Amino acid sequence: MTLLEQEIREQPAVLARLIDSQAEAARKLARAIRERGIQYILIAARGSSDNAARYAQYLFGAHNRLPVALATPSLFTLYQQPPRLQNALVIGISQSGQGPDIVKVVEEGRRQGALTLAITNYPDSPLAATAEHCLFLEAGEERSLAATKTYTAQLAVLALLSTALSDDGARTEALQRMPEAVQTTLDRAAEPALRAAERWLHAEQGVVIGRGYNYATAFEIALKLAEIVYLPLQPYSSADFRHGPFALVEANFPALFVVPGGSTFGDVFNLLEAMHRCGADLLVISDEVAALERGAVRFLLPPDVPEWLTPLTAVVPGQLMALRLAEARGLDPDSPRSLQKVTKTI
Amino acid sequence: MTLLEQEIREQPAVLARLIDSQAEAARKLARAIRERGIQYILIAARGSSDNAARYAQYLFGAHNRLPVALATPSLFTLYQQPPRLQNALVIGISQSGQGPDIVKVVEEGRRQGALTLAITNYPDSPLAATAEHCLFLEAGEERSLAATKTYTAQLAVLALLSTALSDDGARTEALQRMPEAVQTTLDRAAEPALRAAERWLHAEQGVVIGRGYNYATAFEIALKLAEIVYLPLQPYSSADFRHGPFALVEANFPALFVVPGGSTFGDVFNLLEAMHRCGADLLVISDEVAALERGAVRFLLPPDVPEWLTPLTAVVPGQLMALRLAEARGLDPDSPRSLQKVTKTI
Repeated sequence: MTLLEQEIREQPAVLARLIDSQAEAARKLARAIRERGIQYILIAARGSSDNAARYAQYLFGAHNRLPVALATPSLFTLYQQPPRLQNALVIGISQSGQGPDIVKVVEEGRRQGALTLAITNYPDSPLAATAEHCLFLEAGEERSLAATKTYTAQLAVLALLSTALSDDGARTEALQRMPEAVQTTLDRAAEPALRAAERWLHAEQGVVIGRGYNYATAFEIALKLAEIVYLPLQPYSSADFRHGPFALVEANFPALFVVPGGSTFGDVFNLLEAMHRCGADLLVISDEVAALERGAVRFLLPPDVPEWLTPLTAVVPGQLMALRLAEARGLDPDSPRSLQKVTKTI
Repeated sequence: MTLLEQEIREQPAVLARLIDSQAEAARKLARAIRERGIQYILIAARGSSDNAARYAQYLFGAHNRLPVALATPSLFTLYQQPPRLQNALVIGISQSGQGPDIVKVVEEGRRQGALTLAITNYPDSPLAATAEHCLFLEAGEERSLAATKTYTAQLAVLALLSTALSDDGARTEALQRMPEAVQTTLDRAAEPALRAAERWLHAEQGVVIGRGYNYATAFEIALKLAEIVYLPLQPYSSADFRHGPFALVEANFPALFVVPGGSTFGDVFNLLEAMHRCGADLLVISDEVAALERGAVRFLLPPDVPEWLTPLTAVVPGQLMALRLAEARGLDPDSPRSLQKVTKTI
């Protein structure tokens, strides 16, 4: 079994461990956020961590009424003209905790007196040393080049902080059920991932569509397919896709839809229907029968997961599909060409 | 001549008009921003307007020390769980001023007592009616489907507000020289745009790279090529591209680099060199000889434009290239398939 497959399969265990071990640190940070009168959140991240940051925009916006800005690290590094960060919570997310640009943003936040948080897999990393508060991924070493278990761990850590802030028992319980839901997703996605890999064996372009909480999922699945399979899919929200890129669609155009039930379902489903009428080649990740019926390949998500937690399950079929597509194309999913595990950018 | 080409050529005149006519309104808003103690900016926009918002992140961050968050409109529409917007300047950018999601974000900002601004081409639009302050694009009717003159007008309006806020005569003068710089760019780009269209006649994928101020330019050029030519290029910052997508690069991989001189030059140039070593097929937009020399086709930008204003010139070669590539492929650049001029999303 490849390292990538092992790490995809470890996800339920990683989630169970961190939801337990990081709860107290999350509660402590939640108290500091309330006491300091934090008005908005600024997050610095790259790659998969940046996709976790996209999830945070919806999570903290909807449940904690906190606007979330994604940092533009070059303002802090190359331009050396950082913005003022009073009353902000500044978060750096990095699996390795090594990215100089991410460390720099958190360092500047701390220098200005903002509240700071590091989310990383390494307690002894420069990022953890820089921030006032830390939440750890507890994912063990990630040996495959593509991030999988550390991505869902980042989502779970953010969800843990959001539930600590809203102090809502029902939300905490829903989060605690996620290791089991991710296991169910893994089991169910095994067969359709093989079928999707066969169907898209010769695909050369396409899009991944998601909205709201799952805008992040669209980006993360597109990144996995770019990294491991060298397949350049473009991620879009259903709204953005209508503002221009819809012109790309023609018969047989490859599109992967992330469309679980919830507040965004109607809008994403409308686009799915429109692309079905154009004859696009549709793969569907959903827990809604109406959407699944439009898919040439269907990934059935477990029921009873609230929409705000579906990014933890909905990304899993994309991870498995990337793995199987790499194998089908004769590529080594553990060692994508040209990449290194720790990417240090400024 | 197509409508698209006419409107691309109108850009110097549109810029000259709005820099003059909107200056007083920009100064009035700058006073309000100071008096109200605005701590950060939230911008709602879609399509090309969203790319102008990306420019605003660097512009207001570097020159006015204001962090800029891009709004997630679904929090305001589909989820009906908007974040708190105290001490924010809430900006809606929309050519038509009609987008229900953009209007909704500004409406919620005003309801919460935030300072609000509409940037639109239509003074009688719903967006203009909703916001406390307005800045108009003065671009005349845009009849071609792809936004060109309204995009550079949006950049100029944002630059006008930034200079009013910093109250810096040298910056204002630099902005006033931009109509001439855009005209020079149009003249110089005419021939290389034809050559680029011939070279990429059969290109089917690729990337557009830009960073800092020109991260926006990479997105806008990619959007033009998707809308008009149905060519799915992916836009990336040089830093993000190293975190995974670099695996896409192989011999002959199509890449368009936006790499003017300035603080980001070294980082983007390093990536250009790395992709040159991989044998990628490189088109280069720059005012730096070292970068241009790596390009199979070279777009020379006019000198003496400060980096923060280069997005106004650097997008122009991309607009012209999209136009010529559409013509070379036998497509009608004024009427891309499946699109409408006013896209109403929620």
